[in-house]
Amino acid sequence: MPDSRRAAQPLYGRIRDELRTTIHAGAYLPHERLPSESDLMFRYGVSRITVRQALGELEKEGVLFKVPGKGAFVSKPKPFQQLARLQGFAEAMREHGHEISNRLLDIRTLPADATVAERLQLAPGAPVTELRRVRLLNREPVSLDITWVAPHIGERLAREDLASRDVFVILENDYGIALGHADLAIDAQLADPATAKLLALDPGAPLLRIERLTHDRHGHPVDFEYLYCRSDNFQFRLRIAR
Amino acid sequence: MPDSRRAAQPLYGRIRDELRTTIHAGAYLPHERLPSESDLMFRYGVSRITVRQALGELEKEGVLFKVPGKGAFVSKPKPFQQLARLQGFAEAMREHGHEISNRLLDIRTLPADATVAERLQLAPGAPVTELRRVRLLNREPVSLDITWVAPHIGERLAREDLASRDVFVILENDYGIALGHADLAIDAQLADPATAKLLALDPGAPLLRIERLTHDRHGHPVDFEYLYCRSDNFQFRLRIAR
Repeated sequence: MPDSRRAAQPLYGRIRDELRTTIHAGAYLPHERLPSESDLMFRYGVSRITVRQALGELEKEGVLFKVPGKGAFVSKPKPFQQLARLQGFAEAMREHGHEISNRLLDIRTLPADATVAERLQLAPGAPVTELRRVRLLNREPVSLDITWVAPHIGERLAREDLASRDVFVILENDYGIALGHADLAIDAQLADPATAKLLALDPGAPLLRIERLTHDRHGHPVDFEYLYCRSDNFQFRLRIAR
Repeated sequence: MPDSRRAAQPLYGRIRDELRTTIHAGAYLPHERLPSESDLMFRYGVSRITVRQALGELEKEGVLFKVPGKGAFVSKPKPFQQLARLQGFAEAMREHGHEISNRLLDIRTLPADATVAERLQLAPGAPVTELRRVRLLNREPVSLDITWVAPHIGERLAREDLASRDVFVILENDYGIALGHADLAIDAQLADPATAKLLALDPGAPLLRIERLTHDRHGHPVDFEYLYCRSDNFQFRLRIAR
């Protein structure tokens, strides 16, 4: 990096960037305390004001958070689920060391509305089982999942441990239904008051909505869902090729 | 479909479902007028009230729209871009017969902020070219794209026809930079007043935000972007495998 460029940057900016690089390089774990302001003044040979400016910027960026009287701590990066492979939420997130649980709101069999019937290739008004769950990531709600399956599957699911197990895993391991592909449609919505309450958000908060139709290995639709996902504590990621 | 199920459905529901199936099967083109109420009464052997109830439900679903004094017309399905392959907006959407153009807001070289520098592997504060465009789909704004590239690329881009051409296509075809993979992070946000105005939305409308880092074939990052996408007239789709 040419010295002329560095010189153009204010001192606190250089310290902010060095600290960020150190944190991103893994020198401190999530929730680990950073060195004190005095330690940082000594390490970088700068004033307390400069250290505070640098820490303040990193706090605004979400790289760290301050606890009054305790110091500055490294933030956890926003948890994310890889979209590229069809996985249940628990299987995807437990791989990364997150704690997953589900709050089952209800499971009941009712007449399929037009969209659900069309997706699952049922007659409109035919019975379908609807399953509503709030998914919790490290004990915080991250999504409201509304799932529809044919009633012969739904009536079995009602007897399963839906608080800790993914539907996909139950379908495959317990019921012998090998899953194939899923079609996703992704958009953004505002949380309505009921959904906001379930997700511990204010009404009108932005949600990512994923419509997902999962097929078995023979291409028959088996599971249709809307996933309403919080965006402040959760993210989807995807790697694609040209 | 067992007759007992059909019998349980009200008459207007059966006509609604048959009309929806007919429309989805492509019997009418987007913006084509449906048969008149009298024609539908005759065709299905039902009263005007029943026809109106069926059409009213399809209007609520967004399958059709009514024009007073003219009749009912088939809605256009929400345009979508397939996410599975790395494509520029214009190449992806023109394949489906959409008209794409871009409104170039500005292109200028400025010091890279911390995030942009980190993603493009530049020194923080090093010069980077920022390109801001509103993408128009069939003459309606659908996204605000903010793109950063190294200045040796950015200064050439400033001389190109950015109103009609994708950056990806210019990089590959004109500059000989073969593109490799891209990493995407997807979340939802509320439109701030400036973005809302550019996208012809109300402030606080829900936006899909895609962060995209595109690499060349050797894995070097070449193009970092935020795409702020309207959700009311546009959608991303993706097919994934188990």
